Amino acid sequence: MGVVVPFGDKEGGRASLAPLLELVADDMEKINETILAHAHSHVDMIPELAGHLINSGGKRLRPMLTIASALMFDYRGEKHVPLATAVEFMHTATLLHDDVVDESDYRRGRKAARLIWGNQASVLVGDYLLGQAFKMLVDTGLMEALRIMSNAAAIIAEGEVLQLAAQHDVSTTEDAYMQVINAKTAALFSAAAELGAVVAKRPAKEQEALESYGRNLGIAFQLVDDALDYAGEQDKLGKAVGDDFREGKITLPVVLSYRRGTDEERAFWKRVMEDGDQQEGDLEHALELMERHHAIADTIERARHYGAIARDALGIFPESTARNALVEAVDFCIARVS
Amino acid sequence: MGVVVPFGDKEGGRASLAPLLELVADDMEKINETILAHAHSHVDMIPELAGHLINSGGKRLRPMLTIASALMFDYRGEKHVPLATAVEFMHTATLLHDDVVDESDYRRGRKAARLIWGNQASVLVGDYLLGQAFKMLVDTGLMEALRIMSNAAAIIAEGEVLQLAAQHDVSTTEDAYMQVINAKTAALFSAAAELGAVVAKRPAKEQEALESYGRNLGIAFQLVDDALDYAGEQDKLGKAVGDDFREGKITLPVVLSYRRGTDEERAFWKRVMEDGDQQEGDLEHALELMERHHAIADTIERARHYGAIARDALGIFPESTARNALVEAVDFCIARVS
Repeated sequence: MGVVVPFGDKEGGRASLAPLLELVADDMEKINETILAHAHSHVDMIPELAGHLINSGGKRLRPMLTIASALMFDYRGEKHVPLATAVEFMHTATLLHDDVVDESDYRRGRKAARLIWGNQASVLVGDYLLGQAFKMLVDTGLMEALRIMSNAAAIIAEGEVLQLAAQHDVSTTEDAYMQVINAKTAALFSAAAELGAVVAKRPAKEQEALESYGRNLGIAFQLVDDALDYAGEQDKLGKAVGDDFREGKITLPVVLSYRRGTDEERAFWKRVMEDGDQQEGDLEHALELMERHHAIADTIERARHYGAIARDALGIFPESTARNALVEAVDFCIARVS
Repeated sequence: MGVVVPFGDKEGGRASLAPLLELVADDMEKINETILAHAHSHVDMIPELAGHLINSGGKRLRPMLTIASALMFDYRGEKHVPLATAVEFMHTATLLHDDVVDESDYRRGRKAARLIWGNQASVLVGDYLLGQAFKMLVDTGLMEALRIMSNAAAIIAEGEVLQLAAQHDVSTTEDAYMQVINAKTAALFSAAAELGAVVAKRPAKEQEALESYGRNLGIAFQLVDDALDYAGEQDKLGKAVGDDFREGKITLPVVLSYRRGTDEERAFWKRVMEDGDQQEGDLEHALELMERHHAIADTIERARHYGAIARDALGIFPESTARNALVEAVDFCIARVS
């Protein structure tokens, strides 16, 4: 625990995102163009605000999954690009609304849009991008893609409400927490991967395999993110260590520490996470408790478990550059913390 | 000016909503059931919050337009119900986000949802309802309905952002204001009416006629609402006279008064609407200025103009109970203030 592998780094045979990045590079260029075309509006604030977030150096992992899945099936059409762009727009819309709901000040190391343009604009531009996402989906003529994405939209929002209701409850069960990240993060990962099979008109079994791959990868990704918030290095993440802690966000390391702790420790967790009463040294104490109860190490173990399921989900597909890149993306997501 | 005809009232041969209400009554029952089924969630806050707004006695004029349009074509299927419900969900989602953006305290005379459940829940439940709306549309299998509604969603959000940017500018032109209400209100009215032609598989010309009917009715409806805010009676509207004034919301009566006013009057409008510096007697003075410049009467005149276009749009259809009900709905909307 503790050593973070920076994104894109590949040394000593460590997993890397490079094969995936190389595979999708051409199409990601087209996605950039599609984003610019569809975030355009005569209402200046829309491209300004959307551009702030869209150009903020996010990894665009979700649209990559759509592109790579389509390419795994040797898809030769053009529809995977608008599908992947719709995925990124839905993701961006979610981030905008998330930051308003969480009252976040930073996003990917930059000032959150809501601090520059206000909460109001963040809500509305999120709505606009969601509308544009559905317009793009309609333009592909793929009803199945619309089914998947409308379902994802409802599930994501439901998960956010669930989290809102439970967000300051340190006695949240691990199952309840998993339900939240299944909805908040995994739903869009699974939709993104599944769309690759949809656009290539693959049979239901293969579509389901990619749905499972995406969902489990999404869970692993989120769990590693949760661990990194306590174990990462600030520079590489654009996210300060302890951000979740300071915001009182209950994540798996906290859930595990609380459940494994003494009465005294539980009182500590209640004070800092539920009452929001944080003092000098509390973060350090939280890290000690997590270390004592192997909470971070076990969060990563859980992530490995879902990562393994994601890899196996791809087992039914013949080996190919694309399949290997998708598998290595799982390893990479987990290797971010090790 | 000044006498308000309460909803559903029909005396002295005045226009009434009764024919429309009677026509759609059976289907509105089904819409109620569909709403309950789709606002359901294991996350308690969703049905609670959605129910607060959905059961708050809104007129449901928009879904009625979908139903009545479909019935005008003797549509015998069942898809008009989920389409109309999707329209109502999109409207409800918009209201939830609107109240957050406008920081409104009341909606239809009841405490705004955001004051009971918080802004955060209002944003997220709005997102959830929008997701459900698209799911219902997908279930109808009508790609054209999805095209219309995704387009409406993007236009509505764009209009809201536009309003946000211009909302405290009393020198807004009438054209700019019309652009806002075209997007904010008329887009969903037009989509609602158009869907009736879509579900009945009518030719493009008839679909366009209903689109035009809905759009112009929506504009007329909004302009009358704007006038009622200065000319109405509190009890009947669930909206206090002068709400828009107190919130500094620039509507057509203000736009006209400002443009027709003296330098001194313009300074008054700037102070009360732009600077938000309102004192005892300011609302009364605003009403005097509106009276002096015929601002409310002319707002109603503008509404009549759009109402006339809406009526003529239906001219290509043979006379029928449904068509007459749709025509009378226009008259009713305008007769609310007279």
